[in-house]
Amino acid sequence: MKKPWSGRFKQSTDRLMEAFSASIAYDSKLYAHDIAGSIAHAKMLAHTGIIRPGEANKIVSGLEKIRKEFETGRFEFRQSLEDIHMNIESRLAELIGPVAGKLHTARSRNDQVCLDIRLYLRAEVGEIRAAILELEKTLLDLAVKHIDFIVPGYTHLQRAQPVSLAHHLLAHLEMLERDRGRLADALKRIDVMPLGSAALAGTNFPIDRAYTAKLLGFAKISNNSIDAVSDRDFLIEFTAAAAALMMHLSRFAEEVVLWSSSEFGFIELSDAFSTGSSIMPQKKNPDPAELVRGKTGRVYGNLVSLLTMMKSLPLAYNRDLQEDKEPLFDTVDTVKMCLAVFTGMLQTATFKQVPLDKLRQSGFLTATDMADYLVGKGLPFREAHGVTGRTVAYCLEENKHLEQITLGELRKISSRFEKDIFDYIALEKSVDRKDVLGGTSRKRIRQQIARLRRALVK
Amino acid sequence: MKKPWSGRFKQSTDRLMEAFSASIAYDSKLYAHDIAGSIAHAKMLAHTGIIRPGEANKIVSGLEKIRKEFETGRFEFRQSLEDIHMNIESRLAELIGPVAGKLHTARSRNDQVCLDIRLYLRAEVGEIRAAILELEKTLLDLAVKHIDFIVPGYTHLQRAQPVSLAHHLLAHLEMLERDRGRLADALKRIDVMPLGSAALAGTNFPIDRAYTAKLLGFAKISNNSIDAVSDRDFLIEFTAAAAALMMHLSRFAEEVVLWSSSEFGFIELSDAFSTGSSIMPQKKNPDPAELVRGKTGRVYGNLVSLLTMMKSLPLAYNRDLQEDKEPLFDTVDTVKMCLAVFTGMLQTATFKQVPLDKLRQSGFLTATDMADYLVGKGLPFREAHGVTGRTVAYCLEENKHLEQITLGELRKISSRFEKDIFDYIALEKSVDRKDVLGGTSRKRIRQQIARLRRALVK
Amino acid sequence: MKKPWSGRFKQSTDRLMEAFSASIAYDSKLYAHDIAGSIAHAKMLAHTGIIRPGEANKIVSGLEKIRKEFETGRFEFRQSLEDIHMNIESRLAELIGPVAGKLHTARSRNDQVCLDIRLYLRAEVGEIRAAILELEKTLLDLAVKHIDFIVPGYTHLQRAQPVSLAHHLLAHLEMLERDRGRLADALKRIDVMPLGSAALAGTNFPIDRAYTAKLLGFAKISNNSIDAVSDRDFLIEFTAAAAALMMHLSRFAEEVVLWSSSEFGFIELSDAFSTGSSIMPQKKNPDPAELVRGKTGRVYGNLVSLLTMMKSLPLAYNRDLQEDKEPLFDTVDTVKMCLAVFTGMLQTATFKQVPLDKLRQSGFLTATDMADYLVGKGLPFREAHGVTGRTVAYCLEENKHLEQITLGELRKISSRFEKDIFDYIALEKSVDRKDVLGGTSRKRIRQQIARLRRALVK
Amino acid sequence: MKKPWSGRFKQSTDRLMEAFSASIAYDSKLYAHDIAGSIAHAKMLAHTGIIRPGEANKIVSGLEKIRKEFETGRFEFRQSLEDIHMNIESRLAELIGPVAGKLHTARSRNDQVCLDIRLYLRAEVGEIRAAILELEKTLLDLAVKHIDFIVPGYTHLQRAQPVSLAHHLLAHLEMLERDRGRLADALKRIDVMPLGSAALAGTNFPIDRAYTAKLLGFAKISNNSIDAVSDRDFLIEFTAAAAALMMHLSRFAEEVVLWSSSEFGFIELSDAFSTGSSIMPQKKNPDPAELVRGKTGRVYGNLVSLLTMMKSLPLAYNRDLQEDKEPLFDTVDTVKMCLAVFTGMLQTATFKQVPLDKLRQSGFLTATDMADYLVGKGLPFREAHGVTGRTVAYCLEENKHLEQITLGELRKISSRFEKDIFDYIALEKSVDRKDVLGGTSRKRIRQQIARLRRALVK
Repeated sequence: MKKPWSGRFKQSTDRLMEAFSASIAYDSKLYAHDIAGSIAHAKMLAHTGIIRPGEANKIVSGLEKIRKEFETGRFEFRQSLEDIHMNIESRLAELIGPVAGKLHTARSRNDQVCLDIRLYLRAEVGEIRAAILELEKTLLDLAVKHIDFIVPGYTHLQRAQPVSLAHHLLAHLEMLERDRGRLADALKRIDVMPLGSAALAGTNFPIDRAYTAKLLGFAKISNNSIDAVSDRDFLIEFTAAAAALMMHLSRFAEEVVLWSSSEFGFIELSDAFSTGSSIMPQKKNPDPAELVRGKTGRVYGNLVSLLTMMKSLPLAYNRDLQEDKEPLFDTVDTVKMCLAVFTGMLQTATFKQVPLDKLRQSGFLTATDMADYLVGKGLPFREAHGVTGRTVAYCLEENKHLEQITLGELRKISSRFEKDIFDYIALEKSVDRKDVLGGTSRKRIRQQIARLRRALVK
Repeated sequence: MKKPWSGRFKQSTDRLMEAFSASIAYDSKLYAHDIAGSIAHAKMLAHTGIIRPGEANKIVSGLEKIRKEFETGRFEFRQSLEDIHMNIESRLAELIGPVAGKLHTARSRNDQVCLDIRLYLRAEVGEIRAAILELEKTLLDLAVKHIDFIVPGYTHLQRAQPVSLAHHLLAHLEMLERDRGRLADALKRIDVMPLGSAALAGTNFPIDRAYTAKLLGFAKISNNSIDAVSDRDFLIEFTAAAAALMMHLSRFAEEVVLWSSSEFGFIELSDAFSTGSSIMPQKKNPDPAELVRGKTGRVYGNLVSLLTMMKSLPLAYNRDLQEDKEPLFDTVDTVKMCLAVFTGMLQTATFKQVPLDKLRQSGFLTATDMADYLVGKGLPFREAHGVTGRTVAYCLEENKHLEQITLGELRKISSRFEKDIFDYIALEKSVDRKDVLGGTSRKRIRQQIARLRRALVK
Repeated sequence: MKKPWSGRFKQSTDRLMEAFSASIAYDSKLYAHDIAGSIAHAKMLAHTGIIRPGEANKIVSGLEKIRKEFETGRFEFRQSLEDIHMNIESRLAELIGPVAGKLHTARSRNDQVCLDIRLYLRAEVGEIRAAILELEKTLLDLAVKHIDFIVPGYTHLQRAQPVSLAHHLLAHLEMLERDRGRLADALKRIDVMPLGSAALAGTNFPIDRAYTAKLLGFAKISNNSIDAVSDRDFLIEFTAAAAALMMHLSRFAEEVVLWSSSEFGFIELSDAFSTGSSIMPQKKNPDPAELVRGKTGRVYGNLVSLLTMMKSLPLAYNRDLQEDKEPLFDTVDTVKMCLAVFTGMLQTATFKQVPLDKLRQSGFLTATDMADYLVGKGLPFREAHGVTGRTVAYCLEENKHLEQITLGELRKISSRFEKDIFDYIALEKSVDRKDVLGGTSRKRIRQQIARLRRALVK
Repeated sequence: MKKPWSGRFKQSTDRLMEAFSASIAYDSKLYAHDIAGSIAHAKMLAHTGIIRPGEANKIVSGLEKIRKEFETGRFEFRQSLEDIHMNIESRLAELIGPVAGKLHTARSRNDQVCLDIRLYLRAEVGEIRAAILELEKTLLDLAVKHIDFIVPGYTHLQRAQPVSLAHHLLAHLEMLERDRGRLADALKRIDVMPLGSAALAGTNFPIDRAYTAKLLGFAKISNNSIDAVSDRDFLIEFTAAAAALMMHLSRFAEEVVLWSSSEFGFIELSDAFSTGSSIMPQKKNPDPAELVRGKTGRVYGNLVSLLTMMKSLPLAYNRDLQEDKEPLFDTVDTVKMCLAVFTGMLQTATFKQVPLDKLRQSGFLTATDMADYLVGKGLPFREAHGVTGRTVAYCLEENKHLEQITLGELRKISSRFEKDIFDYIALEKSVDRKDVLGGTSRKRIRQQIARLRRALVK
């Protein structure tokens, strides 16, 4: 098959080279956006009188026909035509004859491919933001149900202070809110219309870029043709935001794995979101969480690929840029799948309350409260901390937990202790005393939930 | 020196472990922010009646004294005190006695260190945005001076179409504008007050977080204490934005290196921003551009460090997070230095106009114009492209450039050619015919410059 | 379809989860290795009397039949069977009945998948090393042809000293030799037999691991079952070696792009390994080199993916490890393709000698020789460097090149100059005077070529 | 201060540029290697008659004097002299006069800096390999002590099968052995002498590279001068090996963190290798493990920095290469510190045996043994797996563990069960039945320990 650019060439392209440089295997994903972009371009060409209305109509109905071929799986791809753009253009020529050649007026593959990716990514970011919102709402529902679940809060994976499970779940929600925010900000730089930049310098034809932008619903038009065809910031910014999102999911996934262990035992995943072992009959594994955690590497890797690809490329377009699509598509697909699976996994999981008695027995969860109690009795915090530290050391030696030692024992360590100490360090009291904006008291959690109910709209 | 947390410990810390875990060597950079945060905290504690006004005053004046010790280089660091927070706290106790211990009321190092980094980064992002603006203004000035410089525009590093040098420089400015935009968006998630989250659960004391936030000029207050102490998104987002910025500089740097070569010869750097060789006496090397390009890897690496560090960390604080500071500080320092050097390098460089005659002789810069000319004469673009391709092939065989062949020769290839073709494919004509928003026509460039003059305000 | 591990499960797997966790879409690539491994395992089970010879024969011939189904494209994949192992095992049961179930005796998917990847990678590393060798031989052939091509050697992309093109090409060959060496070393840690480690603890059956290893041609047997099932070092090491290889190709690719520019003009790629532009009819772009350069990011990204995936995974197997395959396969495919294309591109390219007269006119290529000349006349090198530097400065002012100034002019700068200076700084003389092991003198290059002719054997 | 290359320059270097390009702040670390290399070079110059013996002696004793200045902290650094090489060279001139200038004969900073890094890295790799060996020996000692400790082996962090703690520890030792192996292989490509490559082309002087190599103890001499000055493979290969090592440590660290939790409770770190909390008095945190885990990101990041830096650099030396040192030094320092701390942490830690009774109660650790038992009774493995799966499901419903159900209950599920089943699934029996090379039986572990005792020599 003759290449559309073969005028000055004598030899045909080497088969190996053809396979190497073809992108049709993956950029076919862009077909709907390519056709939408071409239709808008054709309409603009007619609108500005660059081509005739009848020509535009022919082109548009040809493109609609091709779109149907794609949708019904009848479109025939040819690797020798390199990419989705040339495949569609060539098919258009078959369908409507030489007038098809007018579609490429005032347009280059350089600006066309940018347009396609921008249309694609704008749509996908919308879907991803919706999927994040879905996960957030799932968390909110779980939080509502688990306000009274007291669980150990950890630092260094050591038991630190008692918190409400709802508070812990809402911490993850906060991360997701930032992810949604970052993607919304990224959209500002995605939703920009590049068409009309042509190869790199702009075009000789009197096109109307604003008209095309309006037809395609773009918020902005690119300001500089050289920049427009060589800019891939928008997909790097998206991938960086996706990497942060995956990082968040990896942290949550790690917790699901921990909590599913028989040692922690805080959660039980449904059978529908677990898998077994081909050799060990007893196994029920938290595979979805592990896979999400593992896929974090994939998105980090995609980010590095893109950054590396762009490093020190001179302006304007270079063929290296073709390598932008696979990491982008893979990131989009990975993120969407991970969000959906995570949501399903949480919706069907069961949280298991650790009996408060058991919580009291290990980790000295309310030692900080004891120190604060002593501050209330007049000790500077640093001294109060020291006294409590010695109390803990005493407990460890005596193999007791905090609520098991007597006032007498306590008073040997510090005379500031009085009998109200035991009430002060009770788990529920400790939780509810964190009555500060962002704190774990149940009152504050309810306020947060109410606030989020209002905030979580698309 | 006794550790502030040594109450429950029997053995002292191993020397090696002490050296390993100390962060004072680098986090001393945060001293001013740490002190500012502590002063605000003390004032809030007095404001809410948690400590007495007199105590707060003592603490504040002690902290002011310490700030002066830092500023005059008299502060004595102790590695055994691990970090900047403990160093300052311990010094405060020396200066004002046990009342110093009250400063740590309702505060943990976990929220304190978050506060410090946020204060630090908020300030640095401001400086970096200003430095980008400075570089943008330099580009704008250069663009104004070089509107009439016609240079080859490249794709694939092959000469593609003639463009104005101003247009090329403004392409770089567009990238920098996006960088500024990304940093402004990142600020939304940096400028959030975490204090009051304490260790992870919030605090038992009736603090007033809004008051502290107001004293420190924060736009928002964190919503969830567990999230607040374990969130490092804001520095990952910053570093990702910095990576994109360095990517942009690496592309520009690559061009400066290319243009400085004797083969291209488009630019001459000043002696002040070049270096020589210890062995080759003739050498004058574009070292600043090369170093900037090389430092790109550094910032990419920092981004990978941070993302890796955070991967699959369970909530809330883990000691791994201590590794957030060095990549952050290094990124800030690198980016600021690179921006300043790049600006200085460009301000002192000389662009060298390639004579138009020489430009005409290679690269067939206006072949696309020839194709568009034929479109104007009624050929569909694809056919016009083919005719021009054959014309180029003919020139290559005859060893001529486009403006050297005769109308007779042209008409042998296509009868559509008429004598107005030679005017049509003149370099300046080609440039000015790209009269479309974002195109390289000089009229459009002047409009862009005017727009940017208005837009480039802090 | 019932899962092979469903005994303890009540609910069936969620569809989404099934799609999420299935690896059959990509691990089908391992079918031949999986079958080879299973055949060896079955033979070993019979050899040790764990199953009967007749059973082993049935299994083996069933597996052979399945292999044929794969080879002829008739094998039917089922996503619900998750992976290639379960797909084959299930098909085996269809073909030979319940005896198929005996194949999984003393084996887990955990050790089986490790075996498959090791067999796969051992084979692919062999092919990659052969492909590197092919490229090295191409370079050697090119070096032989271009010993007398004098080209500028560059540092900082500034002309530095004259070198033979052969010498430059052999520099790239040296890099490739290291790549081959690294891959050979990696093989030591790839070529290790993990089967018999079972799930993680070893097996209850009296298997003979040495026998299996012998059947499969392994050099070593893994020493520790827990390590064996959770070790992915070998593919990280391979990917790191591949990243270094891609880095080398990216440097060479960068040079091909530079040399193809009209500014450098050192090389012309064949039409068969170039592509054109859909809009600019004159363009002939060095796409293969650009694509190779761009694909560097891909392999770097894969390395980051794998390192991230493995970070802080507790022993032994975790489902995260399933994410090892796609980056590995992509790295193998990318590297093989890039090597083949690079070899084809170079074999069909034409190097263009820059006339020596033109070389003399810019870059002061022999200034270092002038300094060395002065050392020969008794000046310490540092002073000789200074004198030459001033000579260059003089030439720049006078707009002359080194061979154009007179002895009189030279002697005004230093009385050490005598008339033999002009012979000393002639380009060919300069090249041949680098008569030191590893230097660019043509005699030394011939020696290197002879040495490499002997060394470059598989 | 005048630059040694200032001959052709008119303006002095900009202050900012000077600070930007100076490497003296970190490359001073190389002083001893720089001096050693210079001494060898001077001796070679005398040996070949290029300088006189008396001159060489003067140079050597000047350099020895400078070495002493460094060792006693009296050496004065000057940033304007850019790097360690120029600082030493300039000081030498002060000490011995113009004859110092002869040291730079037949040498460039390009080959000199390569030499220095190679000498540095060769030494450091030796130290790192020794530190790994130390950690391996610690593991071996711990393994010897804990052969009879039965612990749950995990997959997916779910209890899988019982193993000996010794076996688990030796799994980590195997990883470290591979790390040592990789570093030994890397040494082959580190231990290569580049001096004599000069700027890029070799030198005009009749030097004897083999003599220099012998003086410095190098195993090989570089083959190609252009390659020699632009090759940084050796430090990328080292950093990749270091990244794998850190990955291993991160996995072990993750386990230490898990095991230190009150939920797992398998290990107690010593006070000397733990730290406390500034707010929570009860906390004893596994900080060394967390820090090691966090520092993994740092080394991954350094690897990405170096790979990025090298991407698509044309030959030969480019100033970007200066960015090789900081990631390298940081990697070396990080790895050494982490190894030392990890060794200290393990040597002072206490492993805590979980009572076997408690192990039996959760996780169905010997379910796989039950399946294998049924295979012994004639069931194909797949059926045996199914029967056991149903048995586990039954236990879960009845809230029993495997050893609590009666033979009668078992026989309702499958008639193959006989009373020897209870002996077969006892924990110790399960462990010792894994009597296969690499398996967890105590006999095999003892054999492994004996083998390792012999193998673990430097």
